[in-house]
Amino acid sequence: MQWESFYHTAQGSWAYAYNKETLHLRVRTKRDDVEEVVAETGDKYDWDRTYAEYPMTKAASDTMFDYWEGAVKPPFGRVSYGFRLRAGSETLWLTEDGIGNHRPMPTGGYYDFPYIHEIDLNTVPEWAKSAVFYQIVPDRFANGNPGNDPEGTEPWGGQPKLDNMFGGDLQGIIDHLDHLADLGVNAVYLTPVFVSPSNHKYDTVDYRRIDPQLGDNDLMRELVKQCHDRGIRVMLDAVFNHAGEQFPPFQDVLKYGERSQYADWFHIRGFPLEVKDGIPNYDTFGFYGTMPKLNTANPEVKQYLLDVAEYWVKEVEIDGWRLDVANEVDHHFWRDFRKVVKQANPEAYIVGEVWNDSIKWLLGDQFDSVMNYPFSNQVLEFFTASDMDGYTFSNGISALLMRYPQQTNEVIFNLLGSHDTPRVLTRVGEDKRRLKLCVVFLLTYMGTPCIYYGDEVGLTGGADPDCRKCMEWDPERQDRELYDFYKLLIALRREHAALVSGKFRFLQAEQGDRRLVYERIDEAEHFLVWMNNTEETTTLSHPIETDDWRDALSGEEVQPVDGIMHIELEPLGYRILYRELG
Amino acid sequence: MQWESFYHTAQGSWAYAYNKETLHLRVRTKRDDVEEVVAETGDKYDWDRTYAEYPMTKAASDTMFDYWEGAVKPPFGRVSYGFRLRAGSETLWLTEDGIGNHRPMPTGGYYDFPYIHEIDLNTVPEWAKSAVFYQIVPDRFANGNPGNDPEGTEPWGGQPKLDNMFGGDLQGIIDHLDHLADLGVNAVYLTPVFVSPSNHKYDTVDYRRIDPQLGDNDLMRELVKQCHDRGIRVMLDAVFNHAGEQFPPFQDVLKYGERSQYADWFHIRGFPLEVKDGIPNYDTFGFYGTMPKLNTANPEVKQYLLDVAEYWVKEVEIDGWRLDVANEVDHHFWRDFRKVVKQANPEAYIVGEVWNDSIKWLLGDQFDSVMNYPFSNQVLEFFTASDMDGYTFSNGISALLMRYPQQTNEVIFNLLGSHDTPRVLTRVGEDKRRLKLCVVFLLTYMGTPCIYYGDEVGLTGGADPDCRKCMEWDPERQDRELYDFYKLLIALRREHAALVSGKFRFLQAEQGDRRLVYERIDEAEHFLVWMNNTEETTTLSHPIETDDWRDALSGEEVQPVDGIMHIELEPLGYRILYRELG
Repeated sequence: MQWESFYHTAQGSWAYAYNKETLHLRVRTKRDDVEEVVAETGDKYDWDRTYAEYPMTKAASDTMFDYWEGAVKPPFGRVSYGFRLRAGSETLWLTEDGIGNHRPMPTGGYYDFPYIHEIDLNTVPEWAKSAVFYQIVPDRFANGNPGNDPEGTEPWGGQPKLDNMFGGDLQGIIDHLDHLADLGVNAVYLTPVFVSPSNHKYDTVDYRRIDPQLGDNDLMRELVKQCHDRGIRVMLDAVFNHAGEQFPPFQDVLKYGERSQYADWFHIRGFPLEVKDGIPNYDTFGFYGTMPKLNTANPEVKQYLLDVAEYWVKEVEIDGWRLDVANEVDHHFWRDFRKVVKQANPEAYIVGEVWNDSIKWLLGDQFDSVMNYPFSNQVLEFFTASDMDGYTFSNGISALLMRYPQQTNEVIFNLLGSHDTPRVLTRVGEDKRRLKLCVVFLLTYMGTPCIYYGDEVGLTGGADPDCRKCMEWDPERQDRELYDFYKLLIALRREHAALVSGKFRFLQAEQGDRRLVYERIDEAEHFLVWMNNTEETTTLSHPIETDDWRDALSGEEVQPVDGIMHIELEPLGYRILYRELG
Repeated sequence: MQWESFYHTAQGSWAYAYNKETLHLRVRTKRDDVEEVVAETGDKYDWDRTYAEYPMTKAASDTMFDYWEGAVKPPFGRVSYGFRLRAGSETLWLTEDGIGNHRPMPTGGYYDFPYIHEIDLNTVPEWAKSAVFYQIVPDRFANGNPGNDPEGTEPWGGQPKLDNMFGGDLQGIIDHLDHLADLGVNAVYLTPVFVSPSNHKYDTVDYRRIDPQLGDNDLMRELVKQCHDRGIRVMLDAVFNHAGEQFPPFQDVLKYGERSQYADWFHIRGFPLEVKDGIPNYDTFGFYGTMPKLNTANPEVKQYLLDVAEYWVKEVEIDGWRLDVANEVDHHFWRDFRKVVKQANPEAYIVGEVWNDSIKWLLGDQFDSVMNYPFSNQVLEFFTASDMDGYTFSNGISALLMRYPQQTNEVIFNLLGSHDTPRVLTRVGEDKRRLKLCVVFLLTYMGTPCIYYGDEVGLTGGADPDCRKCMEWDPERQDRELYDFYKLLIALRREHAALVSGKFRFLQAEQGDRRLVYERIDEAEHFLVWMNNTEETTTLSHPIETDDWRDALSGEEVQPVDGIMHIELEPLGYRILYRELG
């Protein structure tokens, strides 16, 4: 066994309470190197009476490593533990003190999870586990009230530019809730809606007021109510890292400089404020002088923003916040943000925008979830005409799964694109078959999927601003076949709990082969997803134990032959099989 | 290069802000495998203009790995980075996306430290860096006032039992502050002093009142004042995990059961409260029914304990809290505890009792430090008559150094023994030469050393209760030679900043050899410590660049020969050399 590959630490995604009774443990070994891992556990205050062994199962593998997982139920909430690893006739013990050929004396040098505290539990909103989100950029979704169109509004469907407006508004969203309900999504995420001069509104001027070109606070209340009536949750976008240039406190600083009572609301390195050689002398989002960074450590700023967060949850009854540039705001702020928001609504869903490994924010004290761009990257690279094989894809996906605790994986915000990326159809070279493979994967995988408005009717678009085209409402110009496909897949996910919270596992993902088989399974249902990510017709075969399988979409029976299921797949085709258990 | 050994994660002790300007990065490679590591860094919003390379230095090595360290100063507080690793002519890049032979496109898959926030900094009290602590068990240190002796007080110097009392008190400590001042320590840590029926007082009855057998609150104030007058800080022991059986709220629950207004102050699994078969039906410290665990998640309990924490800092002006069984209390509690305590005194020192890897509590939001028992274990195992060689010892010590951020290492509470372990002199088989090696290592190493009362005059004692003997005040029975040794070493440490905060590095620590050479170095001073942990006289040789060395204790000049320093050492002897730099 290769000792250098062994990894465990009694924290983070390696040892965490899943619920009040259960601790999840993970340990890493070199790929295909170790045959058996057992957690040896006990209460350090009475080891002998509480000693218990938990066999670990190989939950995932990536390029270099296998990851073993086990669920431990310590009788008194406290547990010390070590791992016993076996390959052939060799047995090793891994504890905090190191690796050795003998079982160390319990429990001095063992790993320790001192106590499972309910208050420290990393709890995520139950509803988010089975939600299918739909992201809307309000200016681009539907114009329900031409009366509030800003000056210079351009005709619907024109070429999006960095600064032009198309008159979309909240009334437009309300008018099209039937579209969402019909599509089958049960949650919407709106990019910013508060007063701001821009079309994207990531430069807030007034955090407590809906931009008049979108509607007003009462109309937002109405939108939330109508969504809730349809069983659709609503998440708004909190841009708390920075404000817009027109934000009154910033204007005050521009005017009065150091003497401004708001001088400490920002991170200012010199007065007067200026942008020299492209570099502002105050902190900003990126180097944009018009997006001054807020000093969230200033108690006044913090209280101001927390009041905003609470207001929309409490008064307008929104169901969650997506947090813009969340990683550049301090952790103290987010800890208090979580308290305020969860106090206002314990089921509120908090999704940070963090593009990197986000474990620091996902330990139960800050976010429930993050926008899973690393997932998008893996999926898009695999399902485009790349040379990534199934083995590499499964390694990448598995590595992502092992980054976070299970409860986070259950509500991580999986997306194929957003207002910040090219659209998925464009990313896959406008090949609808590839788009469908992406969507099948998204909707049969763990986490909380999100569909970017218009993807379901075939919108295309490159990077910002091209990815923010107006929604296509003309049925003649919508891809209705694609729409029906989205609808079918969303319905399938929403009808089957195994697709939401069942165990995920790759069954076939081989080197040099772009075909895949993976499963989702819980106590009641079992799904097998077959994918042919090649341009040739192929037959994929996999051993199978029972003969009670059906095509999950058509309902037709599918029979194995001599214990082998052979599935013929068209170029870039897929098939989803299903059976009920027990 | 062995890929499996590479490790970095943009958090914890691997990537942390040391101060507002500086990020420390660490990366791990297989031992003796990689020749050069460079951090390639830049601001993700303007990579080309901000690109900078930072060579990393090999800071430590343990059994399997080398650890490389670098200090990065990002001009705008934000930094994305990857590592370039070289061995011979092979170059690899390590980023969050993985390992490869080509520099990946910045910065999508790079590691990211999004922003250094002052409020998130892991700041530790400056004074604690240069403190030398002295731990006192008040009942056993000195009896200054026989008038408050509890009934049944036994004659000073008797055999300690689990439940007997010797009449030590706060007046006794005040009376002997000259002893502490003469010894040279500048901080004391008192085990619990609040009302409690036991001799150890880890079963608190009244958190706001000094136990009358020790004195009263005014006398505690007087003790703190007199300590402060002598430049000695005072740390008390906060037993917040559990209370004593006589704690009035617990008595109320015993009496009124579920109807008690305090029923939720504890973790109760059934009424009436009982201990059956050695297992209480309520959570306790260990399985001791007389030490009911406090429900620190209950807002009333939390506020009650936070008020206590604040009271002693604010009203009695203590300088720090040692937190008993700190790992079994919830993290929410400790985060608010830190806020309250640091608000009352920003320089307060917070030391958790955690015997395992404690990184979860040491990220700046909870503790400043922990009791470093893993350090004690390494030192005691090496300096006893064991078969641990210098190589293994240096590996163990280095691995501990790499567990925590540098600022934590600067104030980690290093000890050779406490009220919870056998005394150091007993642990080393009552061989004073071995004791001295332990003490030399303790006092020339990084961190905040603590001396357990009486160790300095030769007290012995096995496990509790034997390690809690009465202090020996009869000069005839004190080991004055040992006392002078302690005094000399403490003075040396306090006079030389390099012994406090200088870089630490092993220079000789070989397999099969129990001799050691290590250095401490800062910009002004350079120390070399030579140790002969064998029973034979030996000469240790090490190449050396200059000839301006002196014996740090005697002041005599010590000359190298042809660039090699040869130091003759007695069996279990040591020598400390010193020179000034620049």
